[in-house]
Amino acid sequence: MLTDRPTPGSQTSLREANRNRIVNAVKQFGGLTQIELAGATGLSTATVSTIVKELAAAGVVDTQTTSRSGRRALKVTLARRLGLVAGVQFGHRHLTVALGDLTREIVATQSMPLPPDHRVDTSLDRAALLVVDHLERLGSGLEELLGVGLALPAPVDEATGMIAVRGLLRGWDDLHVGQVLSKRLARPVHVDNDANLGAIAEHDFGAAADVQDSIFVRASYGVGAGIMINGRLHRGFAGTAGEIGHVQVDAAGAICRCGNRGCLDTVVGSAALLEMLRASHGPLTLRDVITRAEEGDPGCRRVIADAGEKVGSVVASLASTVNPQRVVVGGELAETGETFLAPLRDAVLRHVVPNAISPVEVVPAALGDRAEIMGALAVALRGVDVETSPELTSSPRATTLDPEER
Amino acid sequence: MLTDRPTPGSQTSLREANRNRIVNAVKQFGGLTQIELAGATGLSTATVSTIVKELAAAGVVDTQTTSRSGRRALKVTLARRLGLVAGVQFGHRHLTVALGDLTREIVATQSMPLPPDHRVDTSLDRAALLVVDHLERLGSGLEELLGVGLALPAPVDEATGMIAVRGLLRGWDDLHVGQVLSKRLARPVHVDNDANLGAIAEHDFGAAADVQDSIFVRASYGVGAGIMINGRLHRGFAGTAGEIGHVQVDAAGAICRCGNRGCLDTVVGSAALLEMLRASHGPLTLRDVITRAEEGDPGCRRVIADAGEKVGSVVASLASTVNPQRVVVGGELAETGETFLAPLRDAVLRHVVPNAISPVEVVPAALGDRAEIMGALAVALRGVDVETSPELTSSPRATTLDPEER
Repeated sequence: MLTDRPTPGSQTSLREANRNRIVNAVKQFGGLTQIELAGATGLSTATVSTIVKELAAAGVVDTQTTSRSGRRALKVTLARRLGLVAGVQFGHRHLTVALGDLTREIVATQSMPLPPDHRVDTSLDRAALLVVDHLERLGSGLEELLGVGLALPAPVDEATGMIAVRGLLRGWDDLHVGQVLSKRLARPVHVDNDANLGAIAEHDFGAAADVQDSIFVRASYGVGAGIMINGRLHRGFAGTAGEIGHVQVDAAGAICRCGNRGCLDTVVGSAALLEMLRASHGPLTLRDVITRAEEGDPGCRRVIADAGEKVGSVVASLASTVNPQRVVVGGELAETGETFLAPLRDAVLRHVVPNAISPVEVVPAALGDRAEIMGALAVALRGVDVETSPELTSSPRATTLDPEER
Repeated sequence: MLTDRPTPGSQTSLREANRNRIVNAVKQFGGLTQIELAGATGLSTATVSTIVKELAAAGVVDTQTTSRSGRRALKVTLARRLGLVAGVQFGHRHLTVALGDLTREIVATQSMPLPPDHRVDTSLDRAALLVVDHLERLGSGLEELLGVGLALPAPVDEATGMIAVRGLLRGWDDLHVGQVLSKRLARPVHVDNDANLGAIAEHDFGAAADVQDSIFVRASYGVGAGIMINGRLHRGFAGTAGEIGHVQVDAAGAICRCGNRGCLDTVVGSAALLEMLRASHGPLTLRDVITRAEEGDPGCRRVIADAGEKVGSVVASLASTVNPQRVVVGGELAETGETFLAPLRDAVLRHVVPNAISPVEVVPAALGDRAEIMGALAVALRGVDVETSPELTSSPRATTLDPEER
């Protein structure tokens, strides 16, 4: 599981492993002082200092003097000149593209609407063009792109990069989505579910940064979740882990796109919410409903609150059986704040098995609609193999991501 | 997390780490050939062979020539003379005690009934006496006891060894159960939930031995589950992970001991099953119901089948959201075979989100009613710190178990 495990038994591999450990920690946390690096890697500060000097000399990391709690400290980041990574997010109705540098900073981002039931091949083309376009605007080119993270609103089988549940995204089922985009950009593409990537981002820099076990609930056109266990994303055997949208909540309910009936998605998905408002409010988009709810429209507030209650009752089962310390709630519906969150939180706390330690915390997401794209950039960055041997050239190589890394 | 991680940066710690790696692999798997040890540890066969020789010379491991696939092989086990571990299991109505040696073999076991609502202090006394009694019968004494694993029919907070949900075991709530038994026996006691220990045993030697992600469902007086993720038990933040007995299945249902209403336990727990049969069959025990079901009594078969269906519908949510490869079904109800298992399997497959890889497998447990006690012996053994430095004396030390080890 640990990709930085030394090949056992040799001194050289131990030095190499220690370098990898430091580079991986910087990749994961985006920038750490040497003391923090020692804490994160378990290496002594002396060892960290020696290795950081080597890595800086080789151009792998940049160092910069800062102060922490009034003391001088040396902050270590991946060298900015090493290259860029791209994040691409497909929603049901929008496409977002972002470029980030190896210090984990977003340097460019753009969102555009997608027509309903857009064609997957055209959309992937468009995404690839946007990435190239943004690279050029930065005075950069494809040769500086090191890797791509792709977020999809459906569970993904990590081994193949294909959608793990048929029928959820029309036209995408038989496509090796990652391979298609990878061919267009000639770069490795790591594909994952949007809620999973949101969970990684909220864990790495957001509302779950200080806990090891959390669940990120994403309530948007559909509802999904990403599960962090011991600080790592849990994807499950077939990639469906966190698929709360397909937990049955009504045995006699409507048939779902997945083929089952009465799934949570059939009750709180945007189709159901809009249908509920059609008679009273006429045809609306999900964005309309959220805007009106924020403006105080009682009907729009009500469907969002009821959706919160329903999602909360399903999250309660997960809070009992997976037992995270914290539930982070994001996605479009969460933009309405306590309108959605309060009934969700109440339902979780009412239905979860009470434990003797402390109740599960239910909090709003910290990263808003940037969570998924930040997660995509994070996994793209993890797939970049930064050469850590100062003896060799320090230019990073793009490689396929070790599927066990995250 | 990995207790065998070398202190980074030194050659000595690397040698020590490699020894630990080998001893830990033997502890976990009970006995491996040198080739299997190389596979399990990632060390070269030459390194394994050198270290095994050192460990055998120091009396830490025993070796024995066997044949695997027609070839001679050297099988490595922990030295039998190193000592014994004890497993203690409290059920709602019985107490089981077992002694095992470091080769993972059970050398003595005894079960006895407990009165309903037995007193916890008396019962712990009785357990301690049974352990000592069995040690003496083996011509052994407390000084040879290295550690104890204790299985309870309730979730346990690992940090404190206390019951994690109040009200589930009357009289046990405010007790540091592990500490009490530990004082009686002057040995470290590792306490865990019975379904968790069953999950460990079925993963280590049973029906889930060949998969990394599995769920062990234990349907007995109450229903619970243990979740294995990446080959390790997932306990959750407060120790309630796997508590399917307290997932709500009926919003208007009966009040549960946990304080919620309509929990799965209120519908399929033994109290509910016996109550359903009272009018037609008179007062029965759970054992009676199982025996009569096996003899073909339609009413008894029916309540067990209906319970299977209900448990299956809850396991389906878990199969969607945690997404294991396999569900292993054990506990008393599973003794009725397909009477319980077929409706459970059908419900799981009907309600789980279908994935494009392969359907979740639902199989009977392989270890029967020994699973939990074997799990207790396994965690007791993991708490034993076998001294691996041949330079030093090789007598094992009993220490407190690293809570992150399992």
